[in-house]
Amino acid sequence: MKKIVLLRHGESVWNQENKFTGWTDVDLSPKGIEEAKKAGKILKEAGYTFDVGFTSVLKRSIKTLWYVLEELDLLWIPVSRSWRLNERHYGALQGLNKAETAEKYGEEQVHKWRRDSNVFPPELEKDDPRYPGFEDKYKGLTDKELPVTENLNATIDRVLPDWKEVIAPEVLADKKVVIAAHGNSLRALVKYLDNLTNEEVTNLNIPTGVPLVYELDDDLKPIKHYYLGDASEIEKKQQQVANQSKAK
Amino acid sequence: MKKIVLLRHGESVWNQENKFTGWTDVDLSPKGIEEAKKAGKILKEAGYTFDVGFTSVLKRSIKTLWYVLEELDLLWIPVSRSWRLNERHYGALQGLNKAETAEKYGEEQVHKWRRDSNVFPPELEKDDPRYPGFEDKYKGLTDKELPVTENLNATIDRVLPDWKEVIAPEVLADKKVVIAAHGNSLRALVKYLDNLTNEEVTNLNIPTGVPLVYELDDDLKPIKHYYLGDASEIEKKQQQVANQSKAK
Repeated sequence: MKKIVLLRHGESVWNQENKFTGWTDVDLSPKGIEEAKKAGKILKEAGYTFDVGFTSVLKRSIKTLWYVLEELDLLWIPVSRSWRLNERHYGALQGLNKAETAEKYGEEQVHKWRRDSNVFPPELEKDDPRYPGFEDKYKGLTDKELPVTENLNATIDRVLPDWKEVIAPEVLADKKVVIAAHGNSLRALVKYLDNLTNEEVTNLNIPTGVPLVYELDDDLKPIKHYYLGDASEIEKKQQQVANQSKAK
Repeated sequence: MKKIVLLRHGESVWNQENKFTGWTDVDLSPKGIEEAKKAGKILKEAGYTFDVGFTSVLKRSIKTLWYVLEELDLLWIPVSRSWRLNERHYGALQGLNKAETAEKYGEEQVHKWRRDSNVFPPELEKDDPRYPGFEDKYKGLTDKELPVTENLNATIDRVLPDWKEVIAPEVLADKKVVIAAHGNSLRALVKYLDNLTNEEVTNLNIPTGVPLVYELDDDLKPIKHYYLGDASEIEKKQQQVANQSKAK
């Protein structure tokens, strides 16, 4: 039996401000730092240790893993970062307030943008300062790889090569793996692992800063999964994620 | 012309307590954190950026690079860690106070242990809890690679494969490289790069937290080197390192 730990980054400054973040490289909020440290403590108490870590190239996931590894005294393990684990690109919605956007376009439309696996948010223009092609950290990417918007299925398409070619081989080699990433890049991975339908994934909400354990068989098919930590607190957190797109 | 930046970690808790540290994995002191952040600010002001970073597997160097990269908004670049960049192993002296050891064995003996490239500190027994073979982070090392004590030349012998096989190829590929390491692993590298004699390296003191720039030609031979930051402050810091083994 193999075991991997998935971890959505702690609250970011824009989670706090209820903005669509996507590839915007916003920092953890003070609460997010505390969540990350707490995740580390929970993992430590439960006796977890890791051989290798994976994060996106966005600082909120990088820092989350940092605080977790610091709690575990594992800052020395190898950590790989990949743009493929980035949050879903939210196109032209990036930077907009979720509740205000819901007031303008209606809750239903925003819920579709947020949760319908097939619906793309409005595209970013390539001369928009938010276009990732302007950033050093994406300079190795092809024009086709640089997103102007993504739905969940597009996110899955670019997450999967990282899972299949980089992470899964480590799991198969019995390395203990932790992945610190984002709400939607983790939903993408979970949709694939659990073979969820578009419908099933719609209402899947992964809370910030709570270790999500997947037990996998030797073919990396999930046996079961569970969160670590206090159950009622986790439920409350999941509800908060679901409520973000409600108009005020 | 190639350019690399070497950085000795900021002050550690044991620098502060004036203890022989070696492979003991002690944390940065609050002052050490400030030094690291300041090094980051100095590099930023001087317009430096990096494509790849290297550290030892000891948290004082890992964290130093972390704070530097945070200042530069470069937490996303790949960072490799290797035991080969660790501080010199101080054998059975690890954990002892430098001044007290000088009182007991004489300043001259301690200066030899600290600075004579050929003199080995007393060996650690392999059943000593301080023996690195007991630590997870060294479980991949052979018995021959696990040190019980090192002089500077022994340190050079294990630093160089990392330089030649891992770091130098990146420099030759025109990657901008930063190495955050330790007083003696950096002295080892500098002795090799500048082709210093045992005599010449004896009085080379690298201050904590001050970026040391090496400009190299296309064969990686040094053209010149210099510290970044305030010259008088750097001189004061170098003097402090030199004075640590004085009996009180």
